[in-house]
Amino acid sequence: MLQKVAFQGERGAYSEAAAVEYFGPNIEPVPCESFEDIFERVTSGQVESGIIPVENSLAGSIHRNYDLLLRYNLSIVGEVQLRIAHQLMVLPGVKAEQIKRICSHPQGLAQCEGSITRHFPHVERVSAYDTAGSAKMLREEAMTNAAAIASRRAAEIYKMDIIHPDFEDNPENYTRFLIISREAIEPEGEAKTSIVYAMDNAPGALFKSMAVFALRDIDLTKIESRPLQGKRWQYFFYLDFIGSQHQSHCHNALNNLQETTSYLRVLGSYPRNV
Amino acid sequence: MLQKVAFQGERGAYSEAAAVEYFGPNIEPVPCESFEDIFERVTSGQVESGIIPVENSLAGSIHRNYDLLLRYNLSIVGEVQLRIAHQLMVLPGVKAEQIKRICSHPQGLAQCEGSITRHFPHVERVSAYDTAGSAKMLREEAMTNAAAIASRRAAEIYKMDIIHPDFEDNPENYTRFLIISREAIEPEGEAKTSIVYAMDNAPGALFKSMAVFALRDIDLTKIESRPLQGKRWQYFFYLDFIGSQHQSHCHNALNNLQETTSYLRVLGSYPRNV
Repeated sequence: MLQKVAFQGERGAYSEAAAVEYFGPNIEPVPCESFEDIFERVTSGQVESGIIPVENSLAGSIHRNYDLLLRYNLSIVGEVQLRIAHQLMVLPGVKAEQIKRICSHPQGLAQCEGSITRHFPHVERVSAYDTAGSAKMLREEAMTNAAAIASRRAAEIYKMDIIHPDFEDNPENYTRFLIISREAIEPEGEAKTSIVYAMDNAPGALFKSMAVFALRDIDLTKIESRPLQGKRWQYFFYLDFIGSQHQSHCHNALNNLQETTSYLRVLGSYPRNV
Repeated sequence: MLQKVAFQGERGAYSEAAAVEYFGPNIEPVPCESFEDIFERVTSGQVESGIIPVENSLAGSIHRNYDLLLRYNLSIVGEVQLRIAHQLMVLPGVKAEQIKRICSHPQGLAQCEGSITRHFPHVERVSAYDTAGSAKMLREEAMTNAAAIASRRAAEIYKMDIIHPDFEDNPENYTRFLIISREAIEPEGEAKTSIVYAMDNAPGALFKSMAVFALRDIDLTKIESRPLQGKRWQYFFYLDFIGSQHQSHCHNALNNLQETTSYLRVLGSYPRNV
């Protein structure tokens, strides 16, 4: 039985490519309509794991998934980074001069805007709900006057020809994904830990919360704030640090942090990969 | 001559209501298609000021405007907070039982989802590009089978009847706006300062940058990170603190900060209002 991994989007989505990068090819990718759907399926045991994008190096954090990590009681068990290389693809046999429209997710279109203008100055841009979904649409509707911007994996799945590989304007386009599961793990080797906490709104509170790590030479790799619903201009802080909660210096830092926070939850310790 | 204030959206947008809250009623509101358009018009001198939303207490930061603050060379000269009170409105004479569809910006629809389900269990939800724009559409197309969710100001401008005031599910819905202008000001009374900076990616760098404020008992009210384009997992930090750059303890903190940062810009000191 192959391990089932839930991801958001159609078959061929960048999330699916990231799942294969992390788990290898022997998985059963389970497409989900929404990020919430992934959390539901992992919680209910329909799938072993889920994969969620949390940050893109150009666009920033995907806040929805931070909110869902807080709402559901799952653990982060891994991370993986994928380079987002956009491929311009058409149905086999279609020539560049036949292309009247280019379909993709608005972000896919935006990230290829320079290439589109250079190669196809008069083309119509069509927004789709999904990058892979736009390739699927071209295949299902046999559209010979259109191209899609999607992943290499989408080109394979929907049997499309790539006519412009790596069509994106900026090659420094990476997305970081987290693997979520019902059971926490105890990582071996170099680890990372993700936590979320809230504090009473006192002057210097954030500084004090960061001091518990600085005092122990624990390196922070990410900090993110999200509004605390119902409490105006107060925040949850999401923080990643190097180390595992099972190591004594990190364990002590978390105990110390508990003294200065009104809420604290460890989302998981997992092998460092980014 | 009335002062011209650029805002994003149609006449009656929440941004326009915030401009009236800040400047009073004697202004000439100038609607803009995009946030970028606001920055362009202020830069070119077509308008004296612009007003931009930067943070909502439920949805979080509007990152696009942080990116634009960095790209354009304008100064923050004020801030104002507006409670987002959504009004359900119809053309005069339309009865609740005639309503088959409710139109608004997707966020307006989402923030009234509970009220919609309770009062109109079978209604169709129609996404529009703008809250005020949906009221305008009802007026222009004389739609008697639809309602719009928009501001009280939109109801006045488009002469609509409010049939459900304060229709939002959560009343703790506030947006913080900034006023931008070509010329920096020297605020009197209690002030706030907004800065943006970047650091080399060294362990503890963020902690050190915050220490320059903590050591001088300067209170931080907001910290926000945005990806540094082209440098994977490095960030610009946007930070607000209490005090004016013209006060010596803040001036010293900024000088101290300069030692630990690779980039530092003061976006403005302005009277504190939130």
